[in-house]
Amino acid sequence: MGYGFLGRALVKSLRESYGGRVKVTCIANSRGTLFKEGGVDLNQLPAELSEAVGFREVSPIDYLDKRWVDVLVELTPTNVIDGRPGIDYIRAAMRAGLDVVTANKGPLALAFDELMREAEDKGVLLRYEATVGGGIPVFTLHRYYLKSDKLISIRGILNGTSNYILTRMHFEGMPMDLALEEARMLGIAERDSKLDTEGIDTAIKSVILANSLLQAKKRLSDVKITGINSITLDAIHAAKEMGMTIKLMGLVEDGKISVEPRLIRLNHPLCVHGTLNAIDIIAENLGSLTLIGHGAGKSTVTALLSDLNDIARLKYID
Amino acid sequence: MGYGFLGRALVKSLRESYGGRVKVTCIANSRGTLFKEGGVDLNQLPAELSEAVGFREVSPIDYLDKRWVDVLVELTPTNVIDGRPGIDYIRAAMRAGLDVVTANKGPLALAFDELMREAEDKGVLLRYEATVGGGIPVFTLHRYYLKSDKLISIRGILNGTSNYILTRMHFEGMPMDLALEEARMLGIAERDSKLDTEGIDTAIKSVILANSLLQAKKRLSDVKITGINSITLDAIHAAKEMGMTIKLMGLVEDGKISVEPRLIRLNHPLCVHGTLNAIDIIAENLGSLTLIGHGAGKSTVTALLSDLNDIARLKYID
Repeated sequence: MGYGFLGRALVKSLRESYGGRVKVTCIANSRGTLFKEGGVDLNQLPAELSEAVGFREVSPIDYLDKRWVDVLVELTPTNVIDGRPGIDYIRAAMRAGLDVVTANKGPLALAFDELMREAEDKGVLLRYEATVGGGIPVFTLHRYYLKSDKLISIRGILNGTSNYILTRMHFEGMPMDLALEEARMLGIAERDSKLDTEGIDTAIKSVILANSLLQAKKRLSDVKITGINSITLDAIHAAKEMGMTIKLMGLVEDGKISVEPRLIRLNHPLCVHGTLNAIDIIAENLGSLTLIGHGAGKSTVTALLSDLNDIARLKYID
Repeated sequence: MGYGFLGRALVKSLRESYGGRVKVTCIANSRGTLFKEGGVDLNQLPAELSEAVGFREVSPIDYLDKRWVDVLVELTPTNVIDGRPGIDYIRAAMRAGLDVVTANKGPLALAFDELMREAEDKGVLLRYEATVGGGIPVFTLHRYYLKSDKLISIRGILNGTSNYILTRMHFEGMPMDLALEEARMLGIAERDSKLDTEGIDTAIKSVILANSLLQAKKRLSDVKITGINSITLDAIHAAKEMGMTIKLMGLVEDGKISVEPRLIRLNHPLCVHGTLNAIDIIAENLGSLTLIGHGAGKSTVTALLSDLNDIARLKYID
């Protein structure tokens, strides 16, 4: 479900790296559904899904059935008000006994615990590596490595747009509105970038991290959020004089989640620039482990494929 | 096998976090063996193993038997000449059908492919997360995440001692011999630090990375190695003037492994300071993923426990 940039990139990777070994029976977008019981020929797929032979202007929800589909890959746009339509598709799929991979932050930020419980009740897997720091495998690491230690806190630079703006302010002394305009022209920021600059996107991701890694049972409304709008060039200049800068951080510590601009030393591993994302995890034995990667774009495909491989390993192989 | 800093720290974690759920039947060091078929009482274990009731001055090799042991945790000192005694213990254990977890770089740098083949032949698991970047889960990530992408290259700052020296030279302008002396006094460097400063330790780790992640089938003798001894304060000062510094790097790219001091921008994610280690992986979809953590000490316990948990999950649970 969802056939935008990420859906197309996933299909391209499936075609090039998994040709023949993975069958895609159904692809849908907001306009309709392409369903082929024997598998869609990924080599013949036009750029516009609606131009494919067999595309019909019907909802894909009736195809969420074990007879035709094993795994739903849910890539519809994030909606933080009610999580729709993604949350409806995820629930329908799980009810039908399908495993689910999603890159959609809305459903998880709004109803993490409910969705995990529903997955457990139905005996299906719900995987979401792509939702936070697209190319940073934080949930895989938690599942296969960090459970051997006791997590203490999580800090993250989780929003590429605001990090790009703060980076341009720091290194070029560019005023915030110009940096934002530049980010829009480069396709880094959306036309409506409020979710980014007001810290909402960082808060959504922090909630998912806290619930998944620390069983925090929190919702977006539990997060104290301060965005970057009040950060001045003077403040960044003063930080720079001390070998520091200001970064927008999501913080999970002492049972609380907050999002706020924080001073950080330029030499600190977490202090990454441009559109990079970074997540720093502190655990009892481990001390600090920092993961740095791309937050969006093609790198997210690796997260989706890794979730699909995890499901294959746990349910379909051996 | 091996009851130094790491062995003691592992026993402490097993006692505190897995009390009752894991039975330790045998602990050995170079002087002898403590074996209790019903399980050693970890709460009663003296600091000196040889003072434990039941300790005998015999080789532990006869206890590598499925009747008494499921998993060997091999923590003897690294020997890069012939890998002994670790490699003998690992082979004896695998022949007896035991799974193995090791933190010992020697056997893997000398005979990676042979050991992996032997493990496969015997149907046992050989895990080695602790060997490279103690607190950096690079092999776990490869197994559970990176296989969904195509790896292109690996770069790493893999030796804490040389990184500490270069950091002191960069930030304090301290001459190399003083920085090395300081590292010795702080317990960061060994008395004989040639393996560190001449790049051998970095080369050993690079060989393990290349063989494990890129199936390179390389040996230590295949690595072109340059250490840090010829780096002058003048060179570091000149780099600093350009917003850069010099770091000792292990490089795996285009089928070749090398170790050499390289210029790197101070803002680059891989540019970490002090005793920190960092590994940067480039893959086709993912782009760059950088992992930063502690290279040694208590953080290595998380790697050992994670390997033990992996074996438990794959062979003993469900």
